[in-house]
Amino acid sequence: MTTSVDSRTLYGPVADDLPLVSLRLQSIADGVEFDFVREMLVNALAGSGKMMRPAIALLAGRLGDYPLDRLVPLAASVELLHTATLVHDDVIDQATERRGVPTSAALFGNAASVMLGDFMFAHAADLIAQTDSTLVVRRFAGTLMMMAKGELTQDMTAFEYDEDIQGYLDRITGKTASLFGTAAEGGAIVAGLPDEQREALRMYALRFGIAFQIVDDILDFTGDPEVMGKPVGSDLHAGTLTLPTILYMRERPNDNPVKRAFEGIRRRANLERAIREILESDVIAETQATARRFGDEALEALAPIDDGEVRQTLEGLVDYVFDREF
Amino acid sequence: MTTSVDSRTLYGPVADDLPLVSLRLQSIADGVEFDFVREMLVNALAGSGKMMRPAIALLAGRLGDYPLDRLVPLAASVELLHTATLVHDDVIDQATERRGVPTSAALFGNAASVMLGDFMFAHAADLIAQTDSTLVVRRFAGTLMMMAKGELTQDMTAFEYDEDIQGYLDRITGKTASLFGTAAEGGAIVAGLPDEQREALRMYALRFGIAFQIVDDILDFTGDPEVMGKPVGSDLHAGTLTLPTILYMRERPNDNPVKRAFEGIRRRANLERAIREILESDVIAETQATARRFGDEALEALAPIDDGEVRQTLEGLVDYVFDREF
Repeated sequence: MTTSVDSRTLYGPVADDLPLVSLRLQSIADGVEFDFVREMLVNALAGSGKMMRPAIALLAGRLGDYPLDRLVPLAASVELLHTATLVHDDVIDQATERRGVPTSAALFGNAASVMLGDFMFAHAADLIAQTDSTLVVRRFAGTLMMMAKGELTQDMTAFEYDEDIQGYLDRITGKTASLFGTAAEGGAIVAGLPDEQREALRMYALRFGIAFQIVDDILDFTGDPEVMGKPVGSDLHAGTLTLPTILYMRERPNDNPVKRAFEGIRRRANLERAIREILESDVIAETQATARRFGDEALEALAPIDDGEVRQTLEGLVDYVFDREF
Repeated sequence: MTTSVDSRTLYGPVADDLPLVSLRLQSIADGVEFDFVREMLVNALAGSGKMMRPAIALLAGRLGDYPLDRLVPLAASVELLHTATLVHDDVIDQATERRGVPTSAALFGNAASVMLGDFMFAHAADLIAQTDSTLVVRRFAGTLMMMAKGELTQDMTAFEYDEDIQGYLDRITGKTASLFGTAAEGGAIVAGLPDEQREALRMYALRFGIAFQIVDDILDFTGDPEVMGKPVGSDLHAGTLTLPTILYMRERPNDNPVKRAFEGIRRRANLERAIREILESDVIAETQATARRFGDEALEALAPIDDGEVRQTLEGLVDYVFDREF
């Protein structure tokens, strides 16, 4: 995001093929009959950023026979699904900005955004069917269920102050990491990799996704509000406990401003105190260490993968996540 | 709906197996961790009514080797998908009641209903993957796209008064008939029927679905508002042109109260006049004749199917659609 790394450095041997994924997504927008819907879709896709999930799918496939005619639909499906969930999340969370850009919900309204998300889900399903693999479809469906459950869990447990670290990790695994895992595993399946490599890539991507989300949750506290398009501590203000807050509360069992805020006692003041104390304390460093542990596990998971350009690129992606801001 | 026909008469040789579909859906609700979400899901499924789509999937499969272990997930998926779209439609249309019962959006709010619908879509995808047929998955994805496009088209063309009959038929094919078609074709694929029968069943169900929706659109004018849970002419008030209105406007090229209403001129009075004139004119009978033509085409499509209990049951379903209220 803030680091400017060019696509070739970041994605190595698949950098040249990533535009095929963008073109496939663009072709869906081009096929839309109504200008208004096309505009919504283009706007939603513009927010999809660095195409990290498609890149991981292609990289996994690059280790096998690299059948681009099936890998590109897989990669496009994963990105479209990711973007569709963002569109619906912004309706659910009533978010007006994401990364400094107005959300679909803010620009086009809730009703149109619900429809747009459904339209994107439908096309994601069509793209995944084009992999012609029932196993990939099953993994994809399983990921959809985990993502939906992760979003529900986040909403259902909002303003509860007793979520533990394991609950947090389960939630971000469902919400974020499972789609990374399916991108990698799907690429491996489509490219005909042996089971051991397929499992290695899946584990790599799951751990990578967890590290990625933890870093995201740190940035919610430490990032530049201008760049992030949201105020410092926006998760906490929305009632979502992320790892920094969970660690912070664990260190203060007898003085818990978050608990008091969630119970409705001087909400804003208590939350602002908590955010200030989180930033001043060692919990950010502790959270970074946890993220790094998952990053290290991602690297270790790559052991069965031959050393070469693909593996080095996958390793470099882990570094990139940590270079993002701190 | 108003006619009380027992399930055995209506669904013949698959009546005893339909409860397996309900149980499969119930088991999804049972697996939900949060009481609130389970309650939402049970509420949404309670509105799913007569299980006509699952019955058609099972009936198609009954003509082949009837592999219930794959037909039940197919049938459950079709019903869940149908119900999920209703949940999102009620958010989009801000509907507070459906068939006299409060909608999920009204009971639980828009945010929770968007999540609930996504959760149901995810489970529908998982169920369809259990058919273990990439062809079924592709049909399913294609139907999802048609349904999403049908809903978008309805919304994008709302308050336009120049929709023609073909546009209307295209829209209801996407919105309603395509899922019937996929239910029948999916059952045929899973049960290993030869191509000719598969195509016959698909055509039957598509025509059936069109007839079904036209009857629904007639009932929006002629049905009991108490039973329907919506006022007479609610589609027209929402800006949606259905066949009775399209025929009515065609008969009055020089005096068009709908056009004036949609242009904002004495909206309520003009719409009420249009509804009254539709009910008093012959356009309802003309619309019924159109529905019946599609019903007849559904029956004709069954020609390649051997005469027997399954075919007779499929024929009976067409009669049932027309017996519903008039």
